[in-house]
Amino acid sequence: MVDILHRVGIESPLDDVYTALTTIDGLANWWTTNTHGDENAGGVIRFRFGPEGKDGFDMKVTDLQPAEQVLWEVVGGPEEWMGTEVSFALKREGDYTIVLFQHRGWREPIEFMHHCSTKWAMFLMSLKSYLETGTGAPDPRDVLIDNWH
Amino acid sequence: MVDILHRVGIESPLDDVYTALTTIDGLANWWTTNTHGDENAGGVIRFRFGPEGKDGFDMKVTDLQPAEQVLWEVVGGPEEWMGTEVSFALKREGDYTIVLFQHRGWREPIEFMHHCSTKWAMFLMSLKSYLETGTGAPDPRDVLIDNWH
Repeated sequence: MVDILHRVGIESPLDDVYTALTTIDGLANWWTTNTHGDENAGGVIRFRFGPEGKDGFDMKVTDLQPAEQVLWEVVGGPEEWMGTEVSFALKREGDYTIVLFQHRGWREPIEFMHHCSTKWAMFLMSLKSYLETGTGAPDPRDVLIDNWH
Repeated sequence: MVDILHRVGIESPLDDVYTALTTIDGLANWWTTNTHGDENAGGVIRFRFGPEGKDGFDMKVTDLQPAEQVLWEVVGGPEEWMGTEVSFALKREGDYTIVLFQHRGWREPIEFMHHCSTKWAMFLMSLKSYLETGTGAPDPRDVLIDNWH
């Protein structure tokens, strides 16, 4: 099992970061504008990408610790993502809210995992930009990194 | 042992990407402007960061396969990096030169590793920008991601 790990510091209050990670509106501002579903614990959030919105991920919200942690289980999406977990751990350090991100439980370190690791970094920078400036870069305005977009 | 993985596609010829990864001038244009040393196989390249240039990494060039692969062993730098390996595997796909990046052999998935994973993503985007536009974002013009910079 292999994991994608990232760390981003955001100059915004902890509660604002938590809101951006736990509400449909917040998520739509940094990951994909095409975000719908039930944002509550136990609910499933549907993230869709691309002009037709056919591809995407369904995330079951498995744990919400206000201002501390958000945990999702992937219950729909590409085979390589199924059953993996995505977590955001939050804490304050100086002027920053630190986001420790993990996408855990990949079966193999395949090329698609390399791509997703870089892409997550860009979306976490989008989260940072959204909170610090009001403007993120969610799909379809996301930063394209390679021939897989 | 845990690894940092990334994938970036660059719309530049394979040979140009290889040159940017294997020459002092090329490396200085996307990772850190303060790059010196011996770029040949068996040589050690010294990458330094920050205004005083005291911190950095010494990379021993352990394998060079023209237009295919670059392999470094970390022989100087922070304790967590010592003995780890950095590799860049190259291939063509359509209009892109694909860079598969790995920083392998971390003993533990510590918080510093999360930071370095995100930071590598930004430097690989700097490599992409340097090759596609002529302008990268090496230290000291690098993208700051958190309170560790």
